Amino acid sequence: MRILGIDPGSTVTGFGIVEYARSHLTLVVAGVIRPGRARTLPERLGIIGDGLRDLLREHCPQAVSIERVFQHANVHSALVLAHIRGALMLEVVRAGVTLHEYTALQVKKALVGNGHADKDQVRSMVVRLLKVREIPAPHDVSDALAVAICHAHSSESLGRRGGS
Amino acid sequence: MRILGIDPGSTVTGFGIVEYARSHLTLVVAGVIRPGRARTLPERLGIIGDGLRDLLREHCPQAVSIERVFQHANVHSALVLAHIRGALMLEVVRAGVTLHEYTALQVKKALVGNGHADKDQVRSMVVRLLKVREIPAPHDVSDALAVAICHAHSSESLGRRGGS
Repeated sequence: MRILGIDPGSTVTGFGIVEYARSHLTLVVAGVIRPGRARTLPERLGIIGDGLRDLLREHCPQAVSIERVFQHANVHSALVLAHIRGALMLEVVRAGVTLHEYTALQVKKALVGNGHADKDQVRSMVVRLLKVREIPAPHDVSDALAVAICHAHSSESLGRRGGS
Repeated sequence: MRILGIDPGSTVTGFGIVEYARSHLTLVVAGVIRPGRARTLPERLGIIGDGLRDLLREHCPQAVSIERVFQHANVHSALVLAHIRGALMLEVVRAGVTLHEYTALQVKKALVGNGHADKDQVRSMVVRLLKVREIPAPHDVSDALAVAICHAHSSESLGRRGGS
């Protein structure tokens, strides 16, 4: 199964695609979509939406995994992020790909076994699980790969329990 | 100038297109996109996004006007609404149409002259300005037409002041 993980953000949106087969994870591609700070929100949504559309067309993932964000220290930031998530979700639905959401707690627990793990711990575990030398900064890339891996593990354990 | 006004909502999204020429307003079309409550948020975004795409293609407005919502009594509702706005904004940007945002206060002031006007007063003024017999319930339709008319008035006054 090919899974695209997304870490949405208004200035940097991380993405990472992993291939998951017989409990083995392989990195396909990872990077960032960077619309820049100077643009208006609609312009940034256009760039992020087009970036995701290109990824979906080129790599044809069977599932998209994204962090569920329904709370945030800063209400304005949470609302901007929700606009970006809305645009991303529209693209995913249009592509006919199933969308899965996980909280930050679920992602950290699935990868590190500890819901309070920091971003460096998450990145280290992503490096280990994908057997790559390193994941470049910023954390948006490792966070995107982490939510993809979280879905891989979650779908495997669902499979074992006889779920879908 | 042809203006599409949108009143976004997760269960009902109102829309209204007006033609504005030489200080005269004409109703082109108005109605609602109703994705229903039963669906998931991504499914609803898909239905609303497709509905807007069809409207943009069929009626080719020169401008889209939408209510700016960055505060809400209920944070969860505000976040759901922000997802919908994000999906709508992506469609508008994709269509190459300019997007204009107005607060509820600006819309009410522009139409009724009073920022604390209620929805019935707004609807009555929409009926008067468009010279139609009535605007059917729900309020989503009159609210969408109101934000379109607000942009018509705003662009006219900008034009008078020599703005764009």
